Amino acid sequence: MQQAQTRITVHTHGQAFYEITGEVARRVADSGIATGIVTLFCRHTSAGLLINENAAPAVQRDLLRWLATIAPESAGYEHDSEGPDDMPAHVRSLLTGVSLSIPVADGRMTLGTWQGVYLAEHRRAPHSREIVVQIIGA
Amino acid sequence: MQQAQTRITVHTHGQAFYEITGEVARRVADSGIATGIVTLFCRHTSAGLLINENAAPAVQRDLLRWLATIAPESAGYEHDSEGPDDMPAHVRSLLTGVSLSIPVADGRMTLGTWQGVYLAEHRRAPHSREIVVQIIGA
Amino acid sequence: MQQAQTRITVHTHGQAFYEITGEVARRVADSGIATGIVTLFCRHTSAGLLINENAAPAVQRDLLRWLATIAPESAGYEHDSEGPDDMPAHVRSLLTGVSLSIPVADGRMTLGTWQGVYLAEHRRAPHSREIVVQIIGA
Repeated sequence: MQQAQTRITVHTHGQAFYEITGEVARRVADSGIATGIVTLFCRHTSAGLLINENAAPAVQRDLLRWLATIAPESAGYEHDSEGPDDMPAHVRSLLTGVSLSIPVADGRMTLGTWQGVYLAEHRRAPHSREIVVQIIGA
Repeated sequence: MQQAQTRITVHTHGQAFYEITGEVARRVADSGIATGIVTLFCRHTSAGLLINENAAPAVQRDLLRWLATIAPESAGYEHDSEGPDDMPAHVRSLLTGVSLSIPVADGRMTLGTWQGVYLAEHRRAPHSREIVVQIIGA
Repeated sequence: MQQAQTRITVHTHGQAFYEITGEVARRVADSGIATGIVTLFCRHTSAGLLINENAAPAVQRDLLRWLATIAPESAGYEHDSEGPDDMPAHVRSLLTGVSLSIPVADGRMTLGTWQGVYLAEHRRAPHSREIVVQIIGA
């Protein structure tokens, strides 16, 4: 059993899902671990991690619209000093979550055919987002 | 430290929670690992994994009704080519999530008294759903 | 590679987020593991685990109000024998989730500057909540 830890930085420019599947796959391959688990952790409270459909871009647009409906900007939040998109970003981060664990087999994530891994950016302004990648296995 | 990886297939027939607690428990027991962690990963974007109350069936019915309210079929989704239950299934998959990690002690999951582990099927048509089970420990 | 497993008990007194960051940090330090992963697991179906903003208390109040809006008490649930706050607690537990995995580096969780780890209590009455802490690494 061995492990490897690395970080991925994503430069975001607005509310969207930024695919990191290929980058995570490279880090898993670089680790030399064939069987095990990779854990991803987003070090932010106004962004998150998400696994969802990677084929039809309309799915991502619908998910973003759904998040905007369920956690709208105009909801009369008490915490509004950092702009109207700040508090809804914390709510959407609760919804998408900040940690993901994906088993690894044959040196690759065991994602399904249509699954992509995304950083979900919930703020409007550009941000630099850091994701910790921890791989354990053999 | 050692590990074991196996897969569970669930044949679903409609939107419901399918309990897999017993099946996961068997895989953990088969691994011979006494202390560690089991990670479950659902390889689909229109299904998910869930831990919730396993005693009162009404709880599951209420949860399913809540999911249908919060991510309804008639929400004017852009992505609607695969049927009215497809896009809401992606939203509900975001809500339930696709990965779960449960510590193992004395060769068993450390679930609480009322916790059951479920595959959450969000599509109407029958599907064959695959869950990767990764156990690490000693 | 080695591992350590311990449990944290949180005595709750009403619907709120109870910060456990410091307590988890102590368990990680006590394990002597410098690099690895810590998995937290909440053994209850009407409470959950959450990582969110730890600086502005108004954020937590807004998140709690949002949970009360999205999973309200007066939604005509079928399961209502255990009080009006019981079924919404199960829904809110689905939203917050019950498991979290956080990478460890230099003997500490790799949390971002503003991230705190919380037990989310979704019931009104006082409860004793148990969280399993599993640390794997080297």
